[in-house]
Amino acid sequence: MKVGIIMGSTSDLPVMQKAIDILEHLGIATEVDIVSAHRTPEKLFDYGQNAHTRGINVIIAGAGGAAHLPGMVASLSPLPVIGVPVKSRNSIDGWDSVLSILQMPGGVPVATVALDGAQNAGILAAQILGATNTEIQDRIMTYKEELKQKVIDGAKSLK
Amino acid sequence: MKVGIIMGSTSDLPVMQKAIDILEHLGIATEVDIVSAHRTPEKLFDYGQNAHTRGINVIIAGAGGAAHLPGMVASLSPLPVIGVPVKSRNSIDGWDSVLSILQMPGGVPVATVALDGAQNAGILAAQILGATNTEIQDRIMTYKEELKQKVIDGAKSLK
Amino acid sequence: MKVGIIMGSTSDLPVMQKAIDILEHLGIATEVDIVSAHRTPEKLFDYGQNAHTRGINVIIAGAGGAAHLPGMVASLSPLPVIGVPVKSRNSIDGWDSVLSILQMPGGVPVATVALDGAQNAGILAAQILGATNTEIQDRIMTYKEELKQKVIDGAKSLK
Amino acid sequence: MKVGIIMGSTSDLPVMQKAIDILEHLGIATEVDIVSAHRTPEKLFDYGQNAHTRGINVIIAGAGGAAHLPGMVASLSPLPVIGVPVKSRNSIDGWDSVLSILQMPGGVPVATVALDGAQNAGILAAQILGATNTEIQDRIMTYKEELKQKVIDGAKSLK
Amino acid sequence: MKVGIIMGSTSDLPVMQKAIDILEHLGIATEVDIVSAHRTPEKLFDYGQNAHTRGINVIIAGAGGAAHLPGMVASLSPLPVIGVPVKSRNSIDGWDSVLSILQMPGGVPVATVALDGAQNAGILAAQILGATNTEIQDRIMTYKEELKQKVIDGAKSLK
Amino acid sequence: MKVGIIMGSTSDLPVMQKAIDILEHLGIATEVDIVSAHRTPEKLFDYGQNAHTRGINVIIAGAGGAAHLPGMVASLSPLPVIGVPVKSRNSIDGWDSVLSILQMPGGVPVATVALDGAQNAGILAAQILGATNTEIQDRIMTYKEELKQKVIDGAKSLK
Amino acid sequence: MKVGIIMGSTSDLPVMQKAIDILEHLGIATEVDIVSAHRTPEKLFDYGQNAHTRGINVIIAGAGGAAHLPGMVASLSPLPVIGVPVKSRNSIDGWDSVLSILQMPGGVPVATVALDGAQNAGILAAQILGATNTEIQDRIMTYKEELKQKVIDGAKSLK
Amino acid sequence: MKVGIIMGSTSDLPVMQKAIDILEHLGIATEVDIVSAHRTPEKLFDYGQNAHTRGINVIIAGAGGAAHLPGMVASLSPLPVIGVPVKSRNSIDGWDSVLSILQMPGGVPVATVALDGAQNAGILAAQILGATNTEIQDRIMTYKEELKQKVIDGAKSLK
Repeated sequence: MKVGIIMGSTSDLPVMQKAIDILEHLGIATEVDIVSAHRTPEKLFDYGQNAHTRGINVIIAGAGGAAHLPGMVASLSPLPVIGVPVKSRNSIDGWDSVLSILQMPGGVPVATVALDGAQNAGILAAQILGATNTEIQDRIMTYKEELKQKVIDGAKSLK
Repeated sequence: MKVGIIMGSTSDLPVMQKAIDILEHLGIATEVDIVSAHRTPEKLFDYGQNAHTRGINVIIAGAGGAAHLPGMVASLSPLPVIGVPVKSRNSIDGWDSVLSILQMPGGVPVATVALDGAQNAGILAAQILGATNTEIQDRIMTYKEELKQKVIDGAKSLK
Repeated sequence: MKVGIIMGSTSDLPVMQKAIDILEHLGIATEVDIVSAHRTPEKLFDYGQNAHTRGINVIIAGAGGAAHLPGMVASLSPLPVIGVPVKSRNSIDGWDSVLSILQMPGGVPVATVALDGAQNAGILAAQILGATNTEIQDRIMTYKEELKQKVIDGAKSLK
Repeated sequence: MKVGIIMGSTSDLPVMQKAIDILEHLGIATEVDIVSAHRTPEKLFDYGQNAHTRGINVIIAGAGGAAHLPGMVASLSPLPVIGVPVKSRNSIDGWDSVLSILQMPGGVPVATVALDGAQNAGILAAQILGATNTEIQDRIMTYKEELKQKVIDGAKSLK
Repeated sequence: MKVGIIMGSTSDLPVMQKAIDILEHLGIATEVDIVSAHRTPEKLFDYGQNAHTRGINVIIAGAGGAAHLPGMVASLSPLPVIGVPVKSRNSIDGWDSVLSILQMPGGVPVATVALDGAQNAGILAAQILGATNTEIQDRIMTYKEELKQKVIDGAKSLK
Repeated sequence: MKVGIIMGSTSDLPVMQKAIDILEHLGIATEVDIVSAHRTPEKLFDYGQNAHTRGINVIIAGAGGAAHLPGMVASLSPLPVIGVPVKSRNSIDGWDSVLSILQMPGGVPVATVALDGAQNAGILAAQILGATNTEIQDRIMTYKEELKQKVIDGAKSLK
Repeated sequence: MKVGIIMGSTSDLPVMQKAIDILEHLGIATEVDIVSAHRTPEKLFDYGQNAHTRGINVIIAGAGGAAHLPGMVASLSPLPVIGVPVKSRNSIDGWDSVLSILQMPGGVPVATVALDGAQNAGILAAQILGATNTEIQDRIMTYKEELKQKVIDGAKSLK
Repeated sequence: MKVGIIMGSTSDLPVMQKAIDILEHLGIATEVDIVSAHRTPEKLFDYGQNAHTRGINVIIAGAGGAAHLPGMVASLSPLPVIGVPVKSRNSIDGWDSVLSILQMPGGVPVATVALDGAQNAGILAAQILGATNTEIQDRIMTYKEELKQKVIDGAKSLK
C-alpha cells in the first residue's frame, strides 16, 4: 500500500513535508512528486489517470491560491483524494486555497483538511488505509495514545 | 463493509439523505442514526468509541452551526471521519459549519466536503472503501462515466 | 473571428446567455459548448489544447463553486481566457466561485469579471478583438453611447 | 467559590494567563488544567460531568481553530461556561475559533468573549459570581473605577 | 432573583421573546423593556447604573447592526451582561451585530451568544443564577435531560 | 470654529495624530481628549451632550474593536460625527472596528472613513466647515492642488 | 443651502428616496439627478467640478457594486461627499459597495454611511449644514426627540 | 503595438514592475505612467479618452484600497482594461482592492487578475495582443513551455 503525495510547487514542500513525516512515522510508504495543474497539465492528466494502476491507494494533493490540483486529480482518478489548502505567499489569507479545494461540485469529492494541515492529511490517509485493515487501525490508536499522553504530561507540567 | 451516517438532528436529514441515496446506488451498506454532540454527549462517546468494533468502516457526520459532531467523533474513533457542513437555519451563511468542521487541530483530521455536500460525502466513503478494493473502485469508475455521459448529453441538447 | 463560450453545466446557461446575447448584438460570432472540468476532463483537455487551432480567438468560461474550468482552460491554451464566476446553488454566497477563478498563480492569468457578470465577459471579449481592430473598437464606442443615452433618459424621467 | 480554567494545550497558556491574573486580582480562587477535547476526550467527559460536584462554580474554556472544548464542556455541565476564542498559529485569522465557540445550537449556550479576550473572561466569571453576591459586585465596581482612573490619567498626560 | 431583558427596538421582540419564554419555563422572573442606546441614551444610562440596585441580577441585551446596547450597559453596570446579536433587516448578514457585541475591549466583557440566539441567552442567564444555587442547577439538568430525550425520540422515529 | 477630536485610549493616538496634523495644516482649531465609551461612560455622556454648547462644530471620534465611541457620541450630540475605525491590537483585521462604526441604525448617522483613515477624517471635518464657508473651501482646493502636484512630480520621477 | 443627491442608476431610487424624504422633513432643499460614473463619465466630471459653484453645499452619492461615484465626485469637488453603499442585485452581499466607497485613499475622504443607509445620509447632510447653523441644529435636536418618543411609546406598548 | 501601464501612486511600482518586466521578456512595448483617479482626475480623463488614439492597444491599471482607477479608465476607453488589485498598506487584507476592481456594473468590464498579480496582467495583455496574432501566440506558448520546464526541474531536484 502506498500514498501518493503531490504538490503544485517546490515552495509547498515545507508545508507538505509534515504529511511525509507522519506517514513514515506510521509505517506507510509514500511517493512524492511535483505536479502543477496550471503549468504541467499533461503531467496532471497522466498522474490522475494512472495513479491507481501504479499501486497508489490514496492521493494527498497540496496547493495554494486558486488551488485546482486536488480537484482536478479527483476528477481523473477513482482514488480518494485528500486536499491540503496551502496558505501561499499571494493567497488572500488562505480563503482562496480553502474554498477552491473544499467547494467541489456533486460527483467529485475532495477530502479537505485544515489550512496548511498536511500532518492531518497524512493521518487521514493512514485512517483510509486502516478503514478495512485492523493492523493499521491499531497503529492509529497507538498514535492517538501518544497524543493523549503529551497533553497529560503538559497538564502535569502546569502544576 | 458498512458506512455509519450520523447527524446532529432530524432537521439535517433532508441534506444527509443524499449520502444515504448515493451509497445505496453504489451498493454499499449504511447505518443511519441521530447523535447530537451537545444534547446526547454520552451517545456520542459510545458511538465514537465503538463504531469500529461494531463493523463500521467509515463514518459520515453532518452538523450545522458550531458543528462539533464530526470532530468529536474523529477524536474518539480510529476510523476515517467525513464531515458534512450543513447550512442550518441559524448558521451565518454556512461559514460557522465549514470552519468548525474543517479547521481541526493536528492529530485529529476530519475529511471535510463542501457545504451541504452530503452526496460527495457518500462518494468519498465509497472511494475510501475502494482504496484497497478494486471491485468498489470499478463501481466508482462506472459512476464517473454516468456523470460524464450526462454532461455530454447536456452539451448535445444545447445544439 | 470567433469567441468560444463554455460552461460547466447546462444549469449555468441562464447566466451565460448574456454573454452570447451581447456578442450577437456586437456582431461577433460565438461557439457555445458544455465542458465540465470535473466530469469531462478529457473534453476539457481537448478543448483547451485545440481551441486556438480551430479558429477561436478568445475563450469565455463560466463556472460556480470550486470553479476550475476557466483556470484549467487557461493552463492549456495560449488564448486569453475570460472567467465568469457563477453564483451557483451550493456556492457560499459566490465567494468560492470568485476566488477559485481570480486567484490564479503566476504564469496563467484568467481575466475575471464580476460575479454572474457574463454580459461584461462578452463585452470584454469584443474589446479584446477590438484591441487591434478599429472597426470593432467603433462598435464598442457605439455601444457605450447607447448605455450613456439610457442613463441620460433615466435622469430625464426623474424630473 | 472557584473558577475552573481549562485550555486545549499548553500553547494557549500565554493567552489564558490573563484570566488567571485578573481573577487573582479580584480575590477569586482558580483551578487551572489542560483538557483537550480532541486528544483527551475522556478527560473532557470527566471534567464536564463532575466540575459542579467538585466545587467549581464557573468554567472558563479557551481553545483555537475548530474549538470544540467550550461547547463540549457546556454540553456536559450545568455550570455557565465562558468560551475564549484563541487566535492560534494555524487559525484563519481567528474566525474559526470565534465561530466554532459562538454559534452553539439552541439549548447549550457558551458565553463567548472577544478573540484572545481571556482577561474579560476572568472579569465575566467574577461578575457571574457577583450576580447574587454584593461583596463581589463591590470588587467589580472598584475595578471599574480603577479602569476609569487610568483613562482619566491618560487624558491628563495628553495635555 | 430576576433577569432584566432589554432590546433596542420592538422589532427585536420576535427574536428576544425566546429568552422570555425559556426563563419562564425555568421558573425565573423577568423584566422586559425597550432601551435604545442610540435613541434613548439617557434611559440607557439610567438602566445601566441602577439595574443592580433595583433587584436585577443578570441583564440580557439584544440589538442588531452596529449594536452598542449590550456593551454600553456592560460599561455602566457591575452585573453580568449577556449580548444577543440580532440579524436585523439592514444588517450585513449579521456580521456587524456579532462583531460589535463580541469584540469588547479589556475590562468590559459581554457574554455573547449565537446570532439570534435569544433562547440560549435565557438558558445562560439561568446558569449564571445557578452558579451558586443548586436548586436552579437542578432545573437546568432537568432541562438538558428533556433536550436529550427529544434527540433520542428523533433517532427512534428515524428507524 | 473648532473640531473636537476624541479617542478611546492613548494607544489610538499614533493613528489619530494625523487628523490633528492635517487640521493644523488647514488652519482649523482642534481640541483633543481621551473619552472611553466603556471605561468613562459619564465623560462620554457629558462630552456628547455639551460639545455643541462649548463651541465645537464637528466631532472626530476614533476607536477600535467593538467601537462604540463614535456612535454613542452621535446619539448624544446634534453635531456631525466622523468615525475613524482603528485597527487596534485585538481587532479581527479591523472588520469589527469598521462594522461597529459604519452600520448605525436609522436616525443616528456616523460619517465613517477608511480603516485608520484619521487624515481623511481631518480633511472631511474641514470640508464640513467649508460647506457654507468659501474661505475654507478655497483652502481645501489648494490642498487638493498640492496632492495633484505630488502625483505629477512622482510621474515625472518615473521617467 | 441645498443638498445635491445623485445616484448611479434609477434602480437606486427606491433606496435613495429616503434621503430625499428626510431632508424634506427637515426643511432642507434638495436637487436630485442620475450620474453614472461608468456610463456618463463626462457628466460625472461636470457635476463634480461645478456643484459647489452652482449653490450645492453637500453632496450625497449612492451606488452599488464597484461603487466609484462617491469617490470620484469627492476627487473632483471641494464639498463634503456622503457615500451610500447600495446593496444592488449583483452585489456580493453589499461588501463590494461598502468597501469601494469606504476605503478611500489619503486626501480624498467620503463620509460613508451604513449599507442602504440613505436616510442617515440625509440626516448627516443636515447635521453638516447645522455644524455652523444653530437653527438647523435645533431641527436635528427636535428630530432626535421624535425618535426618542417613538422608542418610549414602543416601550409602553410592551407593557 | 503597445501596452499602457498605469498605477495610482509610485508606491504601487514594486508590485507593477512585474507587468513591465514580463512584457519586456515577451518583446512587447510598454508605456508607464502614474495616473491617480482621486488626485489627478483630469489626467485620468485625458488618459482614458485618448489612449486608443495614441497607439495604445491594451491598458493595465493597478491600484489599492477603494481602487477606482481601472474601472474609471474602462468607462472612458474602448480598449480592454486589465485591473491589478494592489494590497496597499491601508487595505483591509486586499478585499477592498479586489472588490472595487472586480465588481464592475454591466457594460463596463475590467479584466481582473489576482491580488498583486501584475505579472499575470502582463501575460494577459500579451495574450490579448496574441488573440489575432499567431506570432505573439507562439511567444506565449514558448513562455508556457519555460514554466513547465521549471516545474519538471523542481520535481527532479526533489528526488
